[in-house]
Amino acid sequence: MNVSADIRALVERRQAGYSLEAPFYRSEDIFALDMEAIFRQHWIQVATEPELPEPGDYVTVELAGESILIVRDDDMEVRAFHNVCRHRGARLCNEQKGTVGNIVCPYHSWTYNLTGELMFAEHMGEQFDRCKHSLKQVHVQNLAGLIFICLADEPPADFEMMRAAMEPYLLPHDLPNCKVAAQIDIVEKGNWKLVMENNRECYHCVANHPELTISLYEYGFGYQRSDANAEGMDAFERTCVERAKQWEALNLPSVEVEKLLDVTGFRTQRLPLDRSGESQTLDAKVASKKLLGEFRTADLGGLSFWTQPNSWHHFMSDHIVSFSVIPLSAGETLVRTRWLVHQDAVEGVDYDVANLTAVWNATNDQDRTLVEYSQRGAGSSAYEPGPYSPYTEGLVEKFTAWYVGRLAEKIGALVRE
Amino acid sequence: MNVSADIRALVERRQAGYSLEAPFYRSEDIFALDMEAIFRQHWIQVATEPELPEPGDYVTVELAGESILIVRDDDMEVRAFHNVCRHRGARLCNEQKGTVGNIVCPYHSWTYNLTGELMFAEHMGEQFDRCKHSLKQVHVQNLAGLIFICLADEPPADFEMMRAAMEPYLLPHDLPNCKVAAQIDIVEKGNWKLVMENNRECYHCVANHPELTISLYEYGFGYQRSDANAEGMDAFERTCVERAKQWEALNLPSVEVEKLLDVTGFRTQRLPLDRSGESQTLDAKVASKKLLGEFRTADLGGLSFWTQPNSWHHFMSDHIVSFSVIPLSAGETLVRTRWLVHQDAVEGVDYDVANLTAVWNATNDQDRTLVEYSQRGAGSSAYEPGPYSPYTEGLVEKFTAWYVGRLAEKIGALVRE
Amino acid sequence: MNVSADIRALVERRQAGYSLEAPFYRSEDIFALDMEAIFRQHWIQVATEPELPEPGDYVTVELAGESILIVRDDDMEVRAFHNVCRHRGARLCNEQKGTVGNIVCPYHSWTYNLTGELMFAEHMGEQFDRCKHSLKQVHVQNLAGLIFICLADEPPADFEMMRAAMEPYLLPHDLPNCKVAAQIDIVEKGNWKLVMENNRECYHCVANHPELTISLYEYGFGYQRSDANAEGMDAFERTCVERAKQWEALNLPSVEVEKLLDVTGFRTQRLPLDRSGESQTLDAKVASKKLLGEFRTADLGGLSFWTQPNSWHHFMSDHIVSFSVIPLSAGETLVRTRWLVHQDAVEGVDYDVANLTAVWNATNDQDRTLVEYSQRGAGSSAYEPGPYSPYTEGLVEKFTAWYVGRLAEKIGALVRE
Repeated sequence: MNVSADIRALVERRQAGYSLEAPFYRSEDIFALDMEAIFRQHWIQVATEPELPEPGDYVTVELAGESILIVRDDDMEVRAFHNVCRHRGARLCNEQKGTVGNIVCPYHSWTYNLTGELMFAEHMGEQFDRCKHSLKQVHVQNLAGLIFICLADEPPADFEMMRAAMEPYLLPHDLPNCKVAAQIDIVEKGNWKLVMENNRECYHCVANHPELTISLYEYGFGYQRSDANAEGMDAFERTCVERAKQWEALNLPSVEVEKLLDVTGFRTQRLPLDRSGESQTLDAKVASKKLLGEFRTADLGGLSFWTQPNSWHHFMSDHIVSFSVIPLSAGETLVRTRWLVHQDAVEGVDYDVANLTAVWNATNDQDRTLVEYSQRGAGSSAYEPGPYSPYTEGLVEKFTAWYVGRLAEKIGALVRE
Repeated sequence: MNVSADIRALVERRQAGYSLEAPFYRSEDIFALDMEAIFRQHWIQVATEPELPEPGDYVTVELAGESILIVRDDDMEVRAFHNVCRHRGARLCNEQKGTVGNIVCPYHSWTYNLTGELMFAEHMGEQFDRCKHSLKQVHVQNLAGLIFICLADEPPADFEMMRAAMEPYLLPHDLPNCKVAAQIDIVEKGNWKLVMENNRECYHCVANHPELTISLYEYGFGYQRSDANAEGMDAFERTCVERAKQWEALNLPSVEVEKLLDVTGFRTQRLPLDRSGESQTLDAKVASKKLLGEFRTADLGGLSFWTQPNSWHHFMSDHIVSFSVIPLSAGETLVRTRWLVHQDAVEGVDYDVANLTAVWNATNDQDRTLVEYSQRGAGSSAYEPGPYSPYTEGLVEKFTAWYVGRLAEKIGALVRE
Repeated sequence: MNVSADIRALVERRQAGYSLEAPFYRSEDIFALDMEAIFRQHWIQVATEPELPEPGDYVTVELAGESILIVRDDDMEVRAFHNVCRHRGARLCNEQKGTVGNIVCPYHSWTYNLTGELMFAEHMGEQFDRCKHSLKQVHVQNLAGLIFICLADEPPADFEMMRAAMEPYLLPHDLPNCKVAAQIDIVEKGNWKLVMENNRECYHCVANHPELTISLYEYGFGYQRSDANAEGMDAFERTCVERAKQWEALNLPSVEVEKLLDVTGFRTQRLPLDRSGESQTLDAKVASKKLLGEFRTADLGGLSFWTQPNSWHHFMSDHIVSFSVIPLSAGETLVRTRWLVHQDAVEGVDYDVANLTAVWNATNDQDRTLVEYSQRGAGSSAYEPGPYSPYTEGLVEKFTAWYVGRLAEKIGALVRE
């Protein structure tokens, strides 16, 4: 890729252990590069299977200037296409989700089947070759019900390593047999990397997330030991060991897998929850009485799954919360959150949407505010990269290091250690 | 004109019979070129005489970054000026339309008469020469009541050919003795050329315009003959021949004049309307009982008049609908629609505004949606120019070919055939 | 500074006595240069002492892309800092004004005292040096209660000359013992220089400011003598002489000081007010019964104080109106107006806010409209710099000349006479 000397210098002089220089958060040129080198080259998590349960069900995703149509075909396979008519380029599906029999262009009724072939186009004359006007395909992967797309011609091959590592953790939660109980989009006025950095630490949790810290132990992401917290940290570690054994007996792996610097980077870990220990709710009890998969016990803690560059997910015994981050511009980012429960759970009987969504709605809003404070701060000439805590921000560094490393590889820059 | 090699290459490689490459719809650089090479060099239809019936009546038009003041002077002549005070540059008239005695700057009361001469400027001292501070004039033409302006120093001379060809068609409808019964502006989030391409075909009508196709035959713009439509097309052709004779007896020309590739490109044709055949209304009957000019019969079909690059008009026995397209940015376009009836027609007695405007309000809104789908689609990397139908999109091609040809001439590029 | 040849040419060819060429009002490149060469290099008036009466009281100001935190410390000194945490750059104070004990970052609770030292940062490990992470300071000056900041490393030294000249005029009005009775922000859709030019003349007052001209003599800023106004001008001059003597007896200087071309340019003058002569109100009587400082008499006229590049202030016997201009973009400017009365004045008893603010609320709104007309006009290709009146726009010329001169010095350009 062809990038300016200024950007190349920024990448090359990035200092490990420190936040990024301001242009990484503010420059539209670097945003364009992020789209090209990160979001068009990697596997991007954008949807979940329960959003399109039946043939003809579709979702559309706006990513890196593209509109992608993700649709379940008549053989139940999930497919992805560029959402553009081959005639005069009209967008085919103009809602975020819906159901179609065939894909019919609203402009002149050109009609494609669910595998993308052009079936019908009126008035085009005898010379016209329908076969040359199929929809253009996009790569798609389905990992235990999480849908990833890749816009590159040749997607990273190590997706299969993530699949092999993650399926034992994820499959017991049986996401494909869930339903979407709630989906909420928020737009944060901050760069997507600030959204991700915010997600990768809990240093800010105690001061900002009263709802989340009811169930979430603040020690889970690393903490500097002090007289004040030594007792709590020791107790947490004992709990971890104890619960891991119980989960092992249920065939539920909990040990951390940390591959955040892989091309298809990810991390997972199952950790105990505080108080009742069942779920990320306001009372730490399950939000849905109908447990997922074949679970018989509710206190399965929280299984976190993070992917580079843009998603995180919390799998619990009763529900799953799934977050996809979609950059909109250097200063705006969409965060799409879905709450999924067992497909047989009945609203008002087994679960209540307000209770189900209370913690993460509040937490998302708090995080939005913090991201916006950071975005504003990075606009100051007085901003300079500050030090990450070696105790609480080690995983932020892993996000930033992955980002800079991937950028460097794509643009052929050298990164200092 | 000085344009980049990239733009020159786009112009030179344009393939006849296909929609334009995406930058023509999306790039602000090409939008700037469009303003310079198209909208500042050609005759642009922007108003109708009935919008300024009396001396001192004015309209203002925002075009290509300019504000133009069109005003009727005391000798009933229509004049056009740059709407800028010669003192400190304040905009003189800040409403879309109004009436003035003189043109008085709101800032320091510099006062110009209706022919643009500075009559009064206080406190300017003895050295000040009023005569050097007249308003700057803009070229203006009045074709049968349609007002055109040209921002070029030397406007295209072939306007007079259009006038000669068109007056026999237009004058019987007596636009100058109409009044504006309704005027509605809509902003479409699409490039102006998508608005024009949409206007130049009826391939999309059947699927999108239920109100318009009550009176409009879909065959009028070209159709590929098939078993399903052969009977209808034959019937339409017989009707055309029959009605043309009746109109000829009334001295109303109806034969197509197609000069879409002229510098001042245009096209006209009078075609029968369906059902009652009188007017583009929800029942195809006249919307105004008071017929235009000296008409005695209502079933005069629809006379269409199109101009390059930015207008179309439907003249009927009882009313006229006049559309001007004003580009705002690469992705935004103003469509200004006026419905005109006989100046003596009485609202509530002779006509009802809701009935008069029903068809084109609905149709404009439907077209806006289609244009916006196309604009979005052109933002995709998967968009590529698609083939125009040789049957239904021949006149779209004539618009696109005119546009590319004019651009090529202005920038000195070669266009492939 | 490194600027384009185009901008350099614009600066060099500026013609004295004429308004600026359009790019000075419209170009974002010149706006960026204005921020760099004008707003980052000079003393900028941004606040008044009564906005932060107690220790821990702060205001934030957004200027030239920076957020500046102005805070009163525990020793009652006014300090200014870049409003950016030294950790990950979050904005510290996110309201326009407020009160804090310490300055605590909302993100991870890094805590600074009111002199900017980092007192507390958790989890940062043993290697971390708190002393290297103090807030970054900004230069600040307090002139008789008016707060100025300077973003330059070395601020202009001649601020002290302005202080020496102005204190005798300003101190009697005792601004530090006032309180803010009302503060209103408006955003004008015009370049900041049009806002300033508008402020520097009253040529437009008679036609536009019916409320202001109740108390303000239009002759005060210069007028061309004519038969119609000779009598009024003579009477005004006699009044000026007479009142100056009365004020002198009260130790209130009134003679004009005009240093508008100094680096820290300014101008002051005390002039009589019309009618009751007491205050800029709808009846020209005082708006607050509690007079300022040690004043015993209400008819002290109006003391105007202007600073380059961005403020003006009217000091009267009973209240002060203070205006700061904050550029937002080439086409948008914030005007912040504060009305200040004696700190012991009681709302509803001594003053009524609606009455206090009536004149300048109306006048600000009228000026906003005029500035917006000028901004629009400058967008026309027909706009060219027009002549300033030698009688009524001499002080506009002084603003423009100061601006161009300062720009020229900063970029090393030559300015024609």
